[in-house]
Amino acid sequence: MAGSPFGWIDEQERVRRSAGLVRTLRPRPASSPLLDLASNDYLGLTRHPEITAGAADAALRWGGGATGSRLVTGTTQLHAELERELAAFCGFEAALVLSSGYAANLAAVTALAPHGSLIVSDASNHASLIDGCRLARGATQVVPHADPEAVRKALDAQQGQAVVVSDSVFSVDGDAAPLAELAGAAREFGAGLIIDDAHGLGVLGDGGRGAPQAAGLSGADDTVVTVTLSKSFGSQGGAVLGPARVIDHLVNTARTFIFDTGLAPAAAGAALAALRLLRREPERAARARAVAAALHDLLTAEGLQAVRPDAAVVSVRAPSPDEAVRWAADCREAGLAVGCFRPPSVPDGISRLRLTARADLSDDQIAQAVRVISRNAPDSAFITGS
Amino acid sequence: MAGSPFGWIDEQERVRRSAGLVRTLRPRPASSPLLDLASNDYLGLTRHPEITAGAADAALRWGGGATGSRLVTGTTQLHAELERELAAFCGFEAALVLSSGYAANLAAVTALAPHGSLIVSDASNHASLIDGCRLARGATQVVPHADPEAVRKALDAQQGQAVVVSDSVFSVDGDAAPLAELAGAAREFGAGLIIDDAHGLGVLGDGGRGAPQAAGLSGADDTVVTVTLSKSFGSQGGAVLGPARVIDHLVNTARTFIFDTGLAPAAAGAALAALRLLRREPERAARARAVAAALHDLLTAEGLQAVRPDAAVVSVRAPSPDEAVRWAADCREAGLAVGCFRPPSVPDGISRLRLTARADLSDDQIAQAVRVISRNAPDSAFITGS
Ligand SMILES: Cc1ncc(COP(=O)(O)O)c(C=O)c1O
Ligand SMILES: Cc1ncc(COP(=O)(O)O)c(C=O)c1O
Repeated sequence: MAGSPFGWIDEQERVRRSAGLVRTLRPRPASSPLLDLASNDYLGLTRHPEITAGAADAALRWGGGATGSRLVTGTTQLHAELERELAAFCGFEAALVLSSGYAANLAAVTALAPHGSLIVSDASNHASLIDGCRLARGATQVVPHADPEAVRKALDAQQGQAVVVSDSVFSVDGDAAPLAELAGAAREFGAGLIIDDAHGLGVLGDGGRGAPQAAGLSGADDTVVTVTLSKSFGSQGGAVLGPARVIDHLVNTARTFIFDTGLAPAAAGAALAALRLLRREPERAARARAVAAALHDLLTAEGLQAVRPDAAVVSVRAPSPDEAVRWAADCREAGLAVGCFRPPSVPDGISRLRLTARADLSDDQIAQAVRVISRNAPDSAFITGS
Repeated sequence: MAGSPFGWIDEQERVRRSAGLVRTLRPRPASSPLLDLASNDYLGLTRHPEITAGAADAALRWGGGATGSRLVTGTTQLHAELERELAAFCGFEAALVLSSGYAANLAAVTALAPHGSLIVSDASNHASLIDGCRLARGATQVVPHADPEAVRKALDAQQGQAVVVSDSVFSVDGDAAPLAELAGAAREFGAGLIIDDAHGLGVLGDGGRGAPQAAGLSGADDTVVTVTLSKSFGSQGGAVLGPARVIDHLVNTARTFIFDTGLAPAAAGAALAALRLLRREPERAARARAVAAALHDLLTAEGLQAVRPDAAVVSVRAPSPDEAVRWAADCREAGLAVGCFRPPSVPDGISRLRLTARADLSDDQIAQAVRVISRNAPDSAFITGS
């Protein structure tokens, strides 16, 4: 293969291999005896019969795909129904459904940061928000993580339009953004606020209405929220929520909306079923938070370094990428699936086990998970360890 | 609402309105009496019972969503099966499935155009390829549409790595790229070639194996192909096809793969069912091409300005955005759904009706469509018109 234009890839591969950073895909079977603390299925809905029936019925009724851009043939009445109910649930005037949370973030940031504007972006924001900043015409200023004072300073130095962009719950450590303070800073300077509530929807707020609702921001005319349908809602897709004028603006200008095929009916149907179930069983949100808190408390009591969770993600520090991989593999060997985050997925270079709480975990399962994680931990993972 | 940070949107709205360029969503019912020449369902598969059953069965068996990144919990055996069969069908060593064709293009271009490299990009490329160029670390040079000589010149002026990026079939006019010549130019200078076969898969090549297969490029170690599962395959999702080393590289580096939830099982199941059906009924591909050719010939015979189709898209010139909108609306009134492309979706500013051939259209339906389009055409749409 010498001389192939893609030969340079092999050298990068060698570097990754010697750093212990090679990733491979591990296809999973339809049912597995593993206890799952790795997925983002926070409410335990993705295999719920109402959700899978929602997907199946929608495919049979509406077809396997949306057949075109939302602007041409890709908007069904099912999409419109999902948008109406999602907006109402989260307390916003309007909603727009896209093919993924990633696409929703690209759409919101690029459409709301025109030429000449400033984007103030948290240093720990998700990759999709960062790519949104890179694609936007506005200039981006990255500010230190969860630092409203830094946001204020960045806005103070700007004359024109500005938007502040932040995850509500950060995907690596599971900590929450100071949303009320960020909104305060944005308002002080007449800036807009874009909140990515991927990990908040279904978990935070009244009955899972999300972090912006918990912070008193839903329906605000200066606030735009993005969500994903792929975590708490057990499906696929994303949405932007906000004032109707903003949603209309996205319909007319957002490239990842205009030039992308509409979300498949099955995904819209599953998400709608999840939303309706959550409205009927709002206690699922609180249970997901309680499970996360229990995981944290028990792991910390064992001497492990877990970050106090603000939602359903619990992050545990690992000494190195290699040890994180071995730790996760040993847990799997012992019947427990956990996530393993390594560079470059972690901007600070610190490897972690990433556990996700699910509302449907029993107290026994929580205790079992903690036992497995603790028994398989490398010595240096304990605060009191050598 | 004065003083809202998003108030500037209203001014843009006024400009759009006065230019006749406002877009609104029109939710469609599950079944409609309209004859559909607007969707990208080229093989007529999206409502086919095998495809909808493929979606429904996958949702019931695997759940409503993939539950996480493909690197964590989001790879099921169903995804692996789809990747294997898709790679084999198109004649490539490996395939990687992403949540949309848009995401596949962002992944391929960004991962294969590192810092210091050159991207040579056709001026009429799809928005998702353009966004890929914008996100990539390499420098982009846009070359005139379908011009291998210009590609050669751009490559000749470059020392380091380079990739040539092109749609195989351009989505606005339905014309094909000169793939063999582009490959020749790329090879002359040791550059890679990325082909977006969104509109070729299922329509061109032996039994719908795609434009790269028709051009003798499948399996080449310097060629990478992206496809969408949302057009001929009647589903949602996208894929990158290429040498195994390239696919491994994407698994390790492509942000829209790593930081995105895996494709929903229902979408993977529908696409796999479509692929298997097409293998069994390869004549569907030729029929889609024949329908497009018939539409073109009949419209041209009426004196309308249609571009000769190289695949399943037939583009008809409209005198202005306003008249294009009125023309499309009158067709709809008469029972025919057609696409209407206006600025900014058309880079050259020329508005068009966009018709898509479907393999399942009868000769009577073709004749009816041509009748409706011709009868409702503005006078100035005819070549012989005033
Ligand atoms: C914070 C955050 N935003 C956005 C996304 C993207 O959402 P999706 O997977 O639906 O594309 C993710 C994860 O996938 C995420 O963690
Ligand atoms: C040429 C081309 N590439 C890529 C895409 C994006 O594919 P998807 O809709 O699956 O995101 C489209 C249209 O949607 C297209 O026309």
